[in-house]
Amino acid sequence: MLGSCLEAVKKTVPLVHNITNYVTVNDVANALLACGGSPIMSDEPEDVEDITSICSALNINIGTLNQRSIEGMFRAGARANALGHPILLDPVGAGASALRTDTAVRILEELRPGVIRGNVSEIKTLALGSGKTRGVDADAADTVTDRNLDAMVDFAKAFAARTGATVAITGAIDLVADDRACYVIRNGRPEMSRITGTGCQLSGIAAAYAAANPGNRTEAVAAAVCLMGLAGELAFARMQPGDGNSTYRNRIIDAIYNMDAETLNRGAKYELR
Amino acid sequence: MLGSCLEAVKKTVPLVHNITNYVTVNDVANALLACGGSPIMSDEPEDVEDITSICSALNINIGTLNQRSIEGMFRAGARANALGHPILLDPVGAGASALRTDTAVRILEELRPGVIRGNVSEIKTLALGSGKTRGVDADAADTVTDRNLDAMVDFAKAFAARTGATVAITGAIDLVADDRACYVIRNGRPEMSRITGTGCQLSGIAAAYAAANPGNRTEAVAAAVCLMGLAGELAFARMQPGDGNSTYRNRIIDAIYNMDAETLNRGAKYELR
Amino acid sequence: MLGSCLEAVKKTVPLVHNITNYVTVNDVANALLACGGSPIMSDEPEDVEDITSICSALNINIGTLNQRSIEGMFRAGARANALGHPILLDPVGAGASALRTDTAVRILEELRPGVIRGNVSEIKTLALGSGKTRGVDADAADTVTDRNLDAMVDFAKAFAARTGATVAITGAIDLVADDRACYVIRNGRPEMSRITGTGCQLSGIAAAYAAANPGNRTEAVAAAVCLMGLAGELAFARMQPGDGNSTYRNRIIDAIYNMDAETLNRGAKYELR
Repeated sequence: MLGSCLEAVKKTVPLVHNITNYVTVNDVANALLACGGSPIMSDEPEDVEDITSICSALNINIGTLNQRSIEGMFRAGARANALGHPILLDPVGAGASALRTDTAVRILEELRPGVIRGNVSEIKTLALGSGKTRGVDADAADTVTDRNLDAMVDFAKAFAARTGATVAITGAIDLVADDRACYVIRNGRPEMSRITGTGCQLSGIAAAYAAANPGNRTEAVAAAVCLMGLAGELAFARMQPGDGNSTYRNRIIDAIYNMDAETLNRGAKYELR
Repeated sequence: MLGSCLEAVKKTVPLVHNITNYVTVNDVANALLACGGSPIMSDEPEDVEDITSICSALNINIGTLNQRSIEGMFRAGARANALGHPILLDPVGAGASALRTDTAVRILEELRPGVIRGNVSEIKTLALGSGKTRGVDADAADTVTDRNLDAMVDFAKAFAARTGATVAITGAIDLVADDRACYVIRNGRPEMSRITGTGCQLSGIAAAYAAANPGNRTEAVAAAVCLMGLAGELAFARMQPGDGNSTYRNRIIDAIYNMDAETLNRGAKYELR
Repeated sequence: MLGSCLEAVKKTVPLVHNITNYVTVNDVANALLACGGSPIMSDEPEDVEDITSICSALNINIGTLNQRSIEGMFRAGARANALGHPILLDPVGAGASALRTDTAVRILEELRPGVIRGNVSEIKTLALGSGKTRGVDADAADTVTDRNLDAMVDFAKAFAARTGATVAITGAIDLVADDRACYVIRNGRPEMSRITGTGCQLSGIAAAYAAANPGNRTEAVAAAVCLMGLAGELAFARMQPGDGNSTYRNRIIDAIYNMDAETLNRGAKYELR
């Protein structure tokens, strides 16, 4: 059950090392605290090995990468691998620039992250080595819909099989796949795309969930995806006239904070393919 | 009408490349989403040319500049100019340090931004090559008032004529000028100065407005300035006892999110000089 | 009285130069504005000397340090010392990595900050040159309790005597000590530890309080610590069903914004040892 994944996080309070963009970093920290984890941020190459050594997972997000932080990602990743910590890759903007695409592909090949989470454009870029990305949002032509669902499930499983990772493709319909099974998740609200950073928050949370549930990583990532979407639904229900995306952002993190296993089990909308 | 500028943003969803400070970057992103645009942030020199190529405008804010991001500003700016994208310069703290003044002046001369937005101390620093700045706020001796309004309107027009830019000088009274006309805008609330980043948010929004309204840039920037001030008024009207600057920040972005053309046309307070 | 320290901040509006981490920087800026100060951020070595020269205090927080910002810390610190500005050191994560420990110790020795604020693990690391830190949170084995209070008060006074600084050790019980006296403060809520950045905000505020109250630095820092804890209590009293850590964060800054001297004097819970 997804709820037991949530409880494992609240019980073990995994410390997550985040090398993440400076746009949404505060929300990532508060979302990690809200879900029951604990965040630490460090991207200086001379600092990251020590920091990741005291953590349980490493969340790498390339949203505002630079040459220094890229070096930090690889040094932290090598140490995390040596220690057996799960690594999550969030390839923000892969496909939008050569540096982002190349860095994401190198991370994929050299660090072999256990979890990859992005929108469909980003994941396609990684998988196919091509694809167009319009900034950090998914291309409209590139979304998971009921019409292409079978093909997308196959694609997610195949990419998971090739990389050995749990692959989370998030959008209107979310897919969380390993080589054998794929969760098709229908939580969330379209208004979440009008807030910056819900994807980044999810990546931080998914890293905590993976760390706290080492035996069933794919279920744990699916639980994190359901949690985020359900929080978006519960937060939306609390919106008042005059509220907008800034208040919605706060209420989503609040909803993560207040989520318990029973609410998650009851509210999660998914099927297994 | 200003409202049609707003509608053009909501219709075209301009993607804005922001090289901006890490203090207010999250608010800039959410404000851009709130107004109907889409944000992307990148400051690494090896990344910025690709990123700006997929955007419609470039917003350069020197608030926490460093040697790496300065190089990013010039490389992104050169590419934006080659592609005909509007560039907005927000010279945060020009006059407060030699590096900031020199960088802002170099950007002005080498990149020739189409929009310049700052407080009066910053703009005077750029225009006169001198002027004292007390941190990132305007000097009290340096504000636009009804007493010096004629002179300040002339100053704004002259600086616009010299630079070829639309010049936005924001404060208690806002001026938006090109070489021929100056909008004198009286929207906003004094409490907005107790929030960090309303100026930075406005710069991001103004870049989106300029991108979506290429034929009438000055009107578009005036619309963005009225939008921000009016959002400050509407948000203030929703404040409850016990609320302070943090809640006010959220409510302003919420008000931008909920703004429509009719509300903007009705609430904008300006005269043309 | 603590309230007069608050009034001195609101009257003099001290401009505080912050070299601080990018995780909580926006909250630090808004908290400084809320308490009546004014923030400016700059970490580029070529920029920091000019910036700190126009300020009244320097707040150094090593939360996401890098080689460039470390150089900025030392250059800014040297200038602040030359000008007689108070320096506050927030040794975030000292003990968690060699780079953080070494940098904090070097700042302590070379810049001799007038105020040091951290959790007990971080301060012990500085004082004893050892100690374990679990990320950026204090070790459970390392908290100030009623059982070890006498020893911790002695420890705080001794460290203050050795360094010449006012030492603030914050946690469930807060200690603010110089070589002669120690404030034992019991404001605050345990829920504050589920928000990122309340410690960073306090450091920014304490720097402003020190700047505005040069004659009685230790009382001023104690006032800032009481202010932060009391704001946490008042904000908690305003929480509604469904609210969580994100709303709590906003309400705490709001409570700082609305605090007056009388409320602070009435609500501060401390004894002098």
